[in-house]
Amino acid sequence: MTPTVVMKFGGTSVADPERLKRAAQRIVAKREAGNHVVAVLSARGKTTDALIAEAQEISAQPDPREMDMLLSTGERQSCALCAMAINDLGHRAISLTGSQAGIVTDTSHTKARILDVRAERIRVALDEDSIVLVAGFQGVSTAKDVTTLGRGGSDTTAVALAAAIGADVCEIYTDVAGVFSADPRVVADARKLATVSFEEMLEMSASGAGVLQLRSVEYARTHGVRIHCRSSFSDAPGTVVGDGEDTAPRPAITAVTHSTDDARVTLQHVPDAPGMAGRIATVLAEANVNIDMIIQNEPVTAGAGADMSFTVPQEDLRIALAALRVLTEELAIEIHTDESVGKVSVIGEGMKTQAGVAAKVFSTLGAEQINIQMIATSPVKISCIVARDRVTDAVRALHATFLT
Amino acid sequence: MTPTVVMKFGGTSVADPERLKRAAQRIVAKREAGNHVVAVLSARGKTTDALIAEAQEISAQPDPREMDMLLSTGERQSCALCAMAINDLGHRAISLTGSQAGIVTDTSHTKARILDVRAERIRVALDEDSIVLVAGFQGVSTAKDVTTLGRGGSDTTAVALAAAIGADVCEIYTDVAGVFSADPRVVADARKLATVSFEEMLEMSASGAGVLQLRSVEYARTHGVRIHCRSSFSDAPGTVVGDGEDTAPRPAITAVTHSTDDARVTLQHVPDAPGMAGRIATVLAEANVNIDMIIQNEPVTAGAGADMSFTVPQEDLRIALAALRVLTEELAIEIHTDESVGKVSVIGEGMKTQAGVAAKVFSTLGAEQINIQMIATSPVKISCIVARDRVTDAVRALHATFLT
Repeated sequence: MTPTVVMKFGGTSVADPERLKRAAQRIVAKREAGNHVVAVLSARGKTTDALIAEAQEISAQPDPREMDMLLSTGERQSCALCAMAINDLGHRAISLTGSQAGIVTDTSHTKARILDVRAERIRVALDEDSIVLVAGFQGVSTAKDVTTLGRGGSDTTAVALAAAIGADVCEIYTDVAGVFSADPRVVADARKLATVSFEEMLEMSASGAGVLQLRSVEYARTHGVRIHCRSSFSDAPGTVVGDGEDTAPRPAITAVTHSTDDARVTLQHVPDAPGMAGRIATVLAEANVNIDMIIQNEPVTAGAGADMSFTVPQEDLRIALAALRVLTEELAIEIHTDESVGKVSVIGEGMKTQAGVAAKVFSTLGAEQINIQMIATSPVKISCIVARDRVTDAVRALHATFLT
Repeated sequence: MTPTVVMKFGGTSVADPERLKRAAQRIVAKREAGNHVVAVLSARGKTTDALIAEAQEISAQPDPREMDMLLSTGERQSCALCAMAINDLGHRAISLTGSQAGIVTDTSHTKARILDVRAERIRVALDEDSIVLVAGFQGVSTAKDVTTLGRGGSDTTAVALAAAIGADVCEIYTDVAGVFSADPRVVADARKLATVSFEEMLEMSASGAGVLQLRSVEYARTHGVRIHCRSSFSDAPGTVVGDGEDTAPRPAITAVTHSTDDARVTLQHVPDAPGMAGRIATVLAEANVNIDMIIQNEPVTAGAGADMSFTVPQEDLRIALAALRVLTEELAIEIHTDESVGKVSVIGEGMKTQAGVAAKVFSTLGAEQINIQMIATSPVKISCIVARDRVTDAVRALHATFLT
């Protein structure tokens, strides 16, 4: 049976005619190497941003259904143009919209979730020896409306198609060479990782590594889709994301990640009553604000009220505060915010079997005089909130301690 | 029952945010006046031209299926943006692609014909009190691919929807105030016509009046759809196209039209054998070249061969010559071309009942020293091919004779 490969090209990889033609050549080379090929494309370069700007010229709060109709056009353009280029190279290619490709989603416009992939039309086209190009980032809802999957959604499209058609690998082509042990712009000697487990990649995507969208990694783990993150501009192998890829003993940590778009919210004098944390979290969830870290101090004296802190994406801070207003006024809770925080995380499967990683993290930061404001851990991750202007120092120090 | 109106806005009517919002206001005003409204939009301003340029950067001969996928995005963007604007005005609007609107076409990419309109989804939306915006110029083929209807196809979309949903009128909004007795840029005292019959409008569209696409007028006549051509920028009534609109006695002619994009081809020494004209016409039809006027002179002496002349759109001249090559070489036919011709036509239902119109046309042109190269007539039209640099003079002279 002919092996099948899904290839996904991001916006920078199709930004101008030369790059788009190069992507077409890579797709053709993969076909000529004996594979069936399904390629998922993003919108070209700044197309999506330009469309968002057009919408904002028309409406301060564009209707989400119509936003999806508008934004979904960018990927269709990329696919049509790439199909033209492939046809010129002597291969048959057809472009499909998300709907034509059978990507069925729920009705949550601008951030829809994939419910089903009905890949029959893709299978027929592959059987007819066509190369299939699918518009990323979009689908059709159960109400037959065009939906989009949110920023980075093309990764999810690619992984979902790979799962549905049983592809051997899902190759994600971007302008970086793979997944690194830290952001190379921050740490000069950051190394490209040959392999990363799903769990590690999930934590990395959730804590600032921009290379893969979180939801696509979740989908890949659930469906066992091997992802190969690699460069559009070189043939060198990138990073394979999957389980059981590497049986060599692992270092304590695999990578250091960071983010500088967090804001910290502290609530003081929260009544010490059962259910308070739940009420606060519910209010924020209903406003669609994702809380990241959350810590609470029990009051020392009864009736004094507790302190509660959490972080939210900075862009959601205004919404979060607006959502909390009724509750905080009713209960006389004081709110403080700090928009100058950042987060640094160490991530690694090795942590599960090696003790003392946390101690080493804290002492490394302490030696650098970096104050740790909040801490959160998972079996494969330790994250610390620190002052935003110390994030770079923290990343470099932790990378030096663990990875050099 | 609530009356239903179809409104169609061309590319210039939605070119910038201000114009697009004005179109939205007009649509809302129509709804608030007690009508159900379906609006068909074209791509904004130069969007389609920009997309064609993008395709040409990728491929010298873009695949037609992919061209349709590419070009269809422009109208979708217009509709989504207009729906946002209408929602902001407090009305519910949804945008639909040609496919979602039920426009089913044949599979002739880039020039598809509408086979059926399955307007169920539009009817449901109207019943729910929504304003429905439909992307013009496009449909879905019987092979489930996106198709486009060719330049000006949005007019046909509007007329076809008006027929399918039984609209009371199909309003075509453009940057001109209606249909004129001649091109106002050429004839300063050209008058806006209150009414024009289908037959007159067909002849006018076919002979250079740019206001309505020919195919949309054919569709309107076949299905009895009343069209109202009017300005996007004023509330003044425009021109109503339909039959039985006006029972007043008509002048001999209604309008003078012209075109300056014709080329004349003359074939000399065409063998005087049955079927020759058919063979020539077939070769051109297979190359998708529309012949306009055609005249043939019988040979005076047997065996001398005939002369045959016809006009084609200038942009099709190269294709026409290439298509004729085999035949002309085989039969030793000489080809001459003239790319400096133009056409002037007088059109009017009144011609059917008034004699002497042709004589008056010829003597008017003769008095201006304008040489008539070819003549073609229909029951409501007389067209003359003249030197291109005399077209303007011819239009002015004929308008002065018949219409002032």
